[in-house]
Amino acid sequence: MDYDTIAAISTPIGEGAISIVRLSGPEAVHVADRLFHGRRRLVEVDSHTIHYGKIVDPETGRTVEEVMVSVMRKPKTFTREDVVEINCHGGLTSVNRVLELILDQDVRLAEPGEFTKRAFLNGRIDLSQAEAVMDLIRAKTDQAMNVAIGQMEGKLSQLVRQLRQQLLDILAAVEVNIDYPEYDDAEVMTNQLLIEKGTAVRKELERVLATARQGKILREGLSTVIVGRPNVGKSSLLNQLVHESKAIVTNVPGTTRDVIEEYVNVRGVPLKLVDTAGIRDTEDVVEKIGVSRSKELLKSAELVLLLINGNEPLTEEDRQLFQLIVSIPAIILMNKADLPQQASVDEVKALAGDHPILQTSMVSEKGLEELEQAIANLFFSNSVASGGEAYVSNTRHIALLKQAHQAINDAIAAAEQGIPVDMTQIDIKRSWDLLGEIVGDTVSDRLINELFSKFCLGK
Amino acid sequence: MDYDTIAAISTPIGEGAISIVRLSGPEAVHVADRLFHGRRRLVEVDSHTIHYGKIVDPETGRTVEEVMVSVMRKPKTFTREDVVEINCHGGLTSVNRVLELILDQDVRLAEPGEFTKRAFLNGRIDLSQAEAVMDLIRAKTDQAMNVAIGQMEGKLSQLVRQLRQQLLDILAAVEVNIDYPEYDDAEVMTNQLLIEKGTAVRKELERVLATARQGKILREGLSTVIVGRPNVGKSSLLNQLVHESKAIVTNVPGTTRDVIEEYVNVRGVPLKLVDTAGIRDTEDVVEKIGVSRSKELLKSAELVLLLINGNEPLTEEDRQLFQLIVSIPAIILMNKADLPQQASVDEVKALAGDHPILQTSMVSEKGLEELEQAIANLFFSNSVASGGEAYVSNTRHIALLKQAHQAINDAIAAAEQGIPVDMTQIDIKRSWDLLGEIVGDTVSDRLINELFSKFCLGK
Repeated sequence: MDYDTIAAISTPIGEGAISIVRLSGPEAVHVADRLFHGRRRLVEVDSHTIHYGKIVDPETGRTVEEVMVSVMRKPKTFTREDVVEINCHGGLTSVNRVLELILDQDVRLAEPGEFTKRAFLNGRIDLSQAEAVMDLIRAKTDQAMNVAIGQMEGKLSQLVRQLRQQLLDILAAVEVNIDYPEYDDAEVMTNQLLIEKGTAVRKELERVLATARQGKILREGLSTVIVGRPNVGKSSLLNQLVHESKAIVTNVPGTTRDVIEEYVNVRGVPLKLVDTAGIRDTEDVVEKIGVSRSKELLKSAELVLLLINGNEPLTEEDRQLFQLIVSIPAIILMNKADLPQQASVDEVKALAGDHPILQTSMVSEKGLEELEQAIANLFFSNSVASGGEAYVSNTRHIALLKQAHQAINDAIAAAEQGIPVDMTQIDIKRSWDLLGEIVGDTVSDRLINELFSKFCLGK
Repeated sequence: MDYDTIAAISTPIGEGAISIVRLSGPEAVHVADRLFHGRRRLVEVDSHTIHYGKIVDPETGRTVEEVMVSVMRKPKTFTREDVVEINCHGGLTSVNRVLELILDQDVRLAEPGEFTKRAFLNGRIDLSQAEAVMDLIRAKTDQAMNVAIGQMEGKLSQLVRQLRQQLLDILAAVEVNIDYPEYDDAEVMTNQLLIEKGTAVRKELERVLATARQGKILREGLSTVIVGRPNVGKSSLLNQLVHESKAIVTNVPGTTRDVIEEYVNVRGVPLKLVDTAGIRDTEDVVEKIGVSRSKELLKSAELVLLLINGNEPLTEEDRQLFQLIVSIPAIILMNKADLPQQASVDEVKALAGDHPILQTSMVSEKGLEELEQAIANLFFSNSVASGGEAYVSNTRHIALLKQAHQAINDAIAAAEQGIPVDMTQIDIKRSWDLLGEIVGDTVSDRLINELFSKFCLGK
């Protein structure tokens, strides 16, 4: 299908060495050619070649930028359309001016994600691969990057397609039974086959879903809350985590996030630190806002780091905090281990329940290695950390896999109760549809638009 | 000369659709080839071609990114060395990973500005052109961009080279006089020639310097201070300027600026608004911190917008503010023109002296057009605004031009007093050297290093 020609600035907004204006669509090369002054005309050059020249305002005849222009003709391009990339010096003013000149030539400003959307609509990639592109851009650790790359390379798509094929085989068998009921044993045979084949699909779905929580954490970060009484060393711990960390990602202009999120990479686990401003501003979080505020923070916590002052006996406040985290993954840090210990280890053990307990000192940096290891242990078994699996990380995909799992489960249960196969085929078909939504075979335009609107501009 | 191979991320840091890792140097293509898995080997492809493939970690065999790689062989490249640009999806994690893999291959991380520095050292551009690259990136208005583009295209270089040639001609004539003093009239002739030719050079230097102040403002913005008593409408004016403005540029992460500077583009004049935080935080700037603080702010002001409440009689404070701005370019706004006017127009006129006076109302948006026009009139004569001139904007260039002007002036004065030409030749030679520093012909390594270190990384 032929769409209109679109353009956008595809590099992050800011001062940099290179900024790129990207065009895609049937008029891409012609439009660029009209503005380009170089040794050769762009309409005459070979595909996938680069050309030095100037972008000249056709009205004033003035040079607007010195550029390198890449011409890539369909179909071997990102969008499967003609694509031109104008590589400018990295200034905001000049790159904006180049974009303006292009938009003056009957070219439309691309919507966020529209280039990738075209790659999907033109059949170069499926929906889960398109979504992986954005996950890759937002990846905060190497592991998250690996998941996204795997998904982009089609590992999830392949798995989903295999499962759909198996479901289709079952549906075909059901059809035979409905079309040729004269065969006596068809009903029994088909039910047996449905249970057998359905169970295989279910098992595979369960295997994939088993990695889903870890995948989601890799993608979105693990909401982590640091709690403890005043002056137990919360801000020192925060600073240690931030300084030790391989990478910190905070929000950047041009993205849609409103609040500053601080990400810390602990042995491949991206911790999304909650309320770091609160901790930085005052050590007296608990004192000032009481246990009720801690409760609020802990609601969304996926990991709690609870600090105890080992140098003092436990207080009532400490005990209350222990009660708040009973059902949340947590690590207990008996801090100030460099000072004489006065907190009762036995009581801490009793209060901590299954939570691991570490002796730490922010002053002598004791226990920090152990803390990192404990966090890694808590969230990644070795098998997952080593990667290689085509596992899911995207909330949408996980929800669809779960629903598909439920549907196949219903079908198997019905078959086991001897319910006629023409009744169970609805569930099989539903499971097949749900999996189709992951790769975008069965999906509404509205959903497609919504998904791509979350992309960044120029992608 | 052959340098080592360098690499850096050349796009601004942030989430975007495209990030680029750039390599330059003798090993650039080989290094990229070792990490690249595509249909063809990069060492075999033609120059200035683009190739789709994957960057694979040679140790783990894992795909790290899906990329488009541009191969550009010397000498027709940005640096005049072999250049490879690896075009990644815009994620921080993956682009950093790609850079890491490259740096593992005996490639050095480029220093800020090192690519442009090589373009200079390898003779593709001169120093003033290299500096224009950075000015272009930092340009805040179309006019500033035009100055930078002109300079990048070599307009300033050409002018400087012409002047240097003229100075060289004078020096040659002086040499003749020194070498062949037996010709009786050589001395007189040479002095006449020196005065004549030197005056032409001086005139040209004066012509260029005449545009320098405007060029500098275009490049750096005009430090603008809004003053007035409490509640005269300063923050309303600020908001109007910001909202009406075509472009606002504040500081961006990754640049070296520490404080947030707010730039407002008023008809091509980039106003650098000073103390906007103060104005936003409180209307009571003057009330709270008194006239002394205003004095401090006004020290660095290149433009003052003084607001008077037309709805009230002038106060002692108003009169004090008028005194502070006597010798600074200023525009007087008799604000609240929508309300009955009680301030004495005659007194305002008397106090304002040569400063233009406008009737404004932030409520009815009266007078804003006139304000913009007044600002434009104050700083750009039509001739300059229309551009086309090879004029200077860079403080370093302006200083050198002024010194060169002084030196040639000294030489002419000496000649006019009949001082022997072999004495005046020192000044001519000095002028020639100073102009050479602009284009980088006569310049120390230390200065070169210092200039390029101000560039952004990856440029």
